[in-house]
Amino acid sequence: MIAEYISVGTEILLGNIVNLNAPFLAEQFAKLGLTAYYQTSVGDNKARINECLDIASQRADIIVLSGGMGRSMDDVTKESVAMFLGKELKDDSIESAEIIPNEFGESSGEIIEDKDKLYVLLPGQFNELKPMFLKYVYPKLANVSKSTIITRTVKIAGISEEETAEKIDALILKNSNPSIFIYPKSGEVHIHVTAKGENQSECERLIQPVIKELKTLIGEYIYTTEDEVSLEQSVAELLMSNDLTVSTVESCTGGMIASRLINVSGISNVLQTCYVTYSDRSKHKILGVKKSTLQKYTAVSKQTCEEMALASGLSLKADVIVSVTGLAGPDSPYPDKKVGLVYIGCNVKGKVDSIECNFVGDRAKIRECATTAALDFMRVCVLRYIYEVKFGVKEK
Amino acid sequence: MIAEYISVGTEILLGNIVNLNAPFLAEQFAKLGLTAYYQTSVGDNKARINECLDIASQRADIIVLSGGMGRSMDDVTKESVAMFLGKELKDDSIESAEIIPNEFGESSGEIIEDKDKLYVLLPGQFNELKPMFLKYVYPKLANVSKSTIITRTVKIAGISEEETAEKIDALILKNSNPSIFIYPKSGEVHIHVTAKGENQSECERLIQPVIKELKTLIGEYIYTTEDEVSLEQSVAELLMSNDLTVSTVESCTGGMIASRLINVSGISNVLQTCYVTYSDRSKHKILGVKKSTLQKYTAVSKQTCEEMALASGLSLKADVIVSVTGLAGPDSPYPDKKVGLVYIGCNVKGKVDSIECNFVGDRAKIRECATTAALDFMRVCVLRYIYEVKFGVKEK
Repeated sequence: MIAEYISVGTEILLGNIVNLNAPFLAEQFAKLGLTAYYQTSVGDNKARINECLDIASQRADIIVLSGGMGRSMDDVTKESVAMFLGKELKDDSIESAEIIPNEFGESSGEIIEDKDKLYVLLPGQFNELKPMFLKYVYPKLANVSKSTIITRTVKIAGISEEETAEKIDALILKNSNPSIFIYPKSGEVHIHVTAKGENQSECERLIQPVIKELKTLIGEYIYTTEDEVSLEQSVAELLMSNDLTVSTVESCTGGMIASRLINVSGISNVLQTCYVTYSDRSKHKILGVKKSTLQKYTAVSKQTCEEMALASGLSLKADVIVSVTGLAGPDSPYPDKKVGLVYIGCNVKGKVDSIECNFVGDRAKIRECATTAALDFMRVCVLRYIYEVKFGVKEK
Repeated sequence: MIAEYISVGTEILLGNIVNLNAPFLAEQFAKLGLTAYYQTSVGDNKARINECLDIASQRADIIVLSGGMGRSMDDVTKESVAMFLGKELKDDSIESAEIIPNEFGESSGEIIEDKDKLYVLLPGQFNELKPMFLKYVYPKLANVSKSTIITRTVKIAGISEEETAEKIDALILKNSNPSIFIYPKSGEVHIHVTAKGENQSECERLIQPVIKELKTLIGEYIYTTEDEVSLEQSVAELLMSNDLTVSTVESCTGGMIASRLINVSGISNVLQTCYVTYSDRSKHKILGVKKSTLQKYTAVSKQTCEEMALASGLSLKADVIVSVTGLAGPDSPYPDKKVGLVYIGCNVKGKVDSIECNFVGDRAKIRECATTAALDFMRVCVLRYIYEVKFGVKEK
């Protein structure tokens, strides 16, 4: 079945906002096994919304509209859809419509069936649209598409999209149900495994062996197989469940790792003071990086990074300390070091390890990739520590 | 004149990426005085790109396409446009096309004039499209639109979109050339003043009195009247030009202020160690917030915030210390304090001031607004200090 998305809002056409609904709905359509060929944005104008409906209804079975709802908008979307379908508007809702409750805002949504087509109206605010879609629209569409579709997301980090594709290419080609799709997400990669079946248990039966094969192929990179778990959450849960306190000492990421950890509620139980030590002076005075190390190897080196993680200058030390130092650009002060070079260190109960990364992109992109890589490296180091403790493997 | 934007890319329809080109181009169209009624996204498919071109060419004078270019894409966009216009493709470019150089990537762009319409082809990568558009396409479109259009951006912070509208409403209504438009940008507000005229100096003559009136009406909130200057840059330049060192002590923003400052290259000259003190223990042990203060007023209070900014526990103190403590949610541990309550403090050479803010939104939004508000409060406090030093006004 074919689905098409129309976003209504003059603010989109003026560039006032980034439309977050579009990638969200597109991903949901893919999860539902619905095909999408077009997306359209249009202003708060009934004649033009009508034109979009006319075009979309000729090429899609399911038409999802967002925005142009609520008192301030004069409800242009509802009025346009009602007019287009030749239906009445009663008490602010379209005749024969099924109401979609909005628990986070004022404008409720609507689902209308007309001539074998489904029209779904949702508010424009992403934080309202998202829960409404997931709770009420997704099950409805899964039902309409006449077969049960279930998608499981395998989330990985520490490996690029291209490397992932290389490693699981044969698996992708071998499988059509479930289908496997790779989604790059700033610094990490998500793999969707989508099965179509008669019912939920059939879908799960189809999905399980593929998840198992993924674990065999790229298990070391998988941080979760749960949809709602983020990388920082997976790291935070690992720390919390093992009673490990954590601290960050950051240079080029400048607080972004701490900030990501603080996304996780409950982190306050384990998060100790974090430090942004951007200057050499700061790295020396606060963290205790030796002056000779900074002079001999520079601030962007494996040696400095590991001394940062060691944090001999701190009197109060966390169990886990992650350090980052790198060249985010735009320029490199060192002739032999390129922009994008980043060192990440991790100290778990006194044992320090580090990796060298080379990221590509502008300053913001490099810092973002470094942050994600640091969270993942922390996860790997902590897992290794737990493994050693559990199985009594001797440390080198 | 009417402009329409078509983004080509299956990755958009699958939800793999957020389309940053769309709001950028929409804003540029508005700056150029071009009207936009629709935006469309379509996959890497020639027949469907052709359909989009057919529809767009019936309703717009200028059609800008992005994406679907480069070797991996088989150049579907160029092939589709050539086919649609009945032109030949020679050496990878469309017959009679003007080439747009790409200094940051491999795929060059093209501008083709056909039957009084202009087709602009650009690569899909935002960091390539943006400089190409600004350097080569913007001047061309400004020329085509037959009058000179100049937009000046007045950037303000510390005031909401609604309050801004209220304060400058009369000015907006009074002026049609230049036109005045308010753009909310996460935590700050941009005001575009756009003039149409015979030439640049006429436009500037029209714009200047409006900028002056804006300075009279909302001068205290304006941090720059330059397009390319960000809030963190304006703060950083103020600090650097006055030889003031800076440090952040952050709770709910968790390093986001430090991270924003580190966006500015050259900040290393003034940025001292920054601290993320998320727990009460951290606030007490590291910053020297009194235990009694934390007990009596809690961590989210004016008193704690000001003691954080005072940072009596730090041996090495920066000239300017900005502090943030607040409730980012999802829940509030205090029955009398609501999620969104944030205190921001600023210490300039020992003099501490603070403000109370109440933000609305989810955890991410509240943290983002708090970060922007803190940067702006720092700006205001530093300006006040400089003013006092310069004019010898006595401190209270």
